[in-house]
Amino acid sequence: MNQNYPSALLEKAVNEFAKLPGIGGKTALRLVLHLLRQENSAVESFGNAMITLKNEVKYCSVCHNISDSEVCSICSNPRRDASVVCVVENIQDVMAIENTRQFQGLYHVLGGVISPMEGVGPSDLQIDSLVHRVREGGVDEVILALSPTMEGDTTNFYIFRKLADVDVKISVIARGVAQNDELQYTDEITLGRSIVNRTLFTGKM
Amino acid sequence: MNQNYPSALLEKAVNEFAKLPGIGGKTALRLVLHLLRQENSAVESFGNAMITLKNEVKYCSVCHNISDSEVCSICSNPRRDASVVCVVENIQDVMAIENTRQFQGLYHVLGGVISPMEGVGPSDLQIDSLVHRVREGGVDEVILALSPTMEGDTTNFYIFRKLADVDVKISVIARGVAQNDELQYTDEITLGRSIVNRTLFTGKM
Repeated sequence: MNQNYPSALLEKAVNEFAKLPGIGGKTALRLVLHLLRQENSAVESFGNAMITLKNEVKYCSVCHNISDSEVCSICSNPRRDASVVCVVENIQDVMAIENTRQFQGLYHVLGGVISPMEGVGPSDLQIDSLVHRVREGGVDEVILALSPTMEGDTTNFYIFRKLADVDVKISVIARGVAQNDELQYTDEITLGRSIVNRTLFTGKM
Repeated sequence: MNQNYPSALLEKAVNEFAKLPGIGGKTALRLVLHLLRQENSAVESFGNAMITLKNEVKYCSVCHNISDSEVCSICSNPRRDASVVCVVENIQDVMAIENTRQFQGLYHVLGGVISPMEGVGPSDLQIDSLVHRVREGGVDEVILALSPTMEGDTTNFYIFRKLADVDVKISVIARGVAQNDELQYTDEITLGRSIVNRTLFTGKM
């Protein structure tokens, strides 16, 4: 649809919204006009929340999850079991597993999975820091909780090989999660069960 | 879904997004994490576009459309036919009609329709300014292009009565548009035809 915006400021705001994934031009216009009907303070709160997050966001130096402090609230929680480390792709996956309330250990956020198609190699991910973290000792088990896709499997296998000479148990979440499903959208029961029913990683899937 | 946000800043940004109509918690998180992966400058551009729009937005003193100047680009365009004024509910409707390229006159943006259910009365809308504008002279025809709903019909009739003693032709867009459809989502051919086939307003629908 060819849009004739009555205002360049409006057009700019709509174009910024339309850059977001899944937000088309008409939705962007609707959202901007909704915001325009709110109080000045509400609009400033909206715009500044995003800018403040971007400027002040930290990543936990241990697990690489988003954090407000140097070490995140999970890694610094003495009631969590530091001997078990659950390896996940991203922040949403940490939140999804936390919501199952089935896991008391710590996390390691890779920042993605190995994907030659998308040009993501091991060095683009937090794999070296995982190996370093496990080698330092104190970790008895590494749970691989990546998406059950070819890329996830490849990454599982890569990590398994990298940790081959370290005395640590490596497990993988049970294939209760359906092949090619997105981990973050899996229902909590299935996802919780997959953590409880994890199986020993033998190098085969 | 009970969310355990790893960061208060993240939670704040997600909550701000989730206030938008049609944006749920998971979508809000996905959008915020998408923005977080962009450059600082892109995030500032996003946040500031909305704040700048809200702070600097003007409304045309003639037609009340959003504008960057005192009088909007349509009202100040000498090639537009100032003798025909098309009355619409909102800014999206101006844009939708402009996109049909079937209308060369000017607009009058009411800012809504009379809706007792939602507590919107005539004094909440730009109806007095419309009557004043028509009484000043130079307007030969007023086209009522409100949504084909009970509220739109009520508003049409109210304006018709208000202009009863003024020597001006009042027309209404053809009912090519289906009853209860939202005007801004009508296809351009139907909407364009409804402007061309407008009929004389007789006080009955």
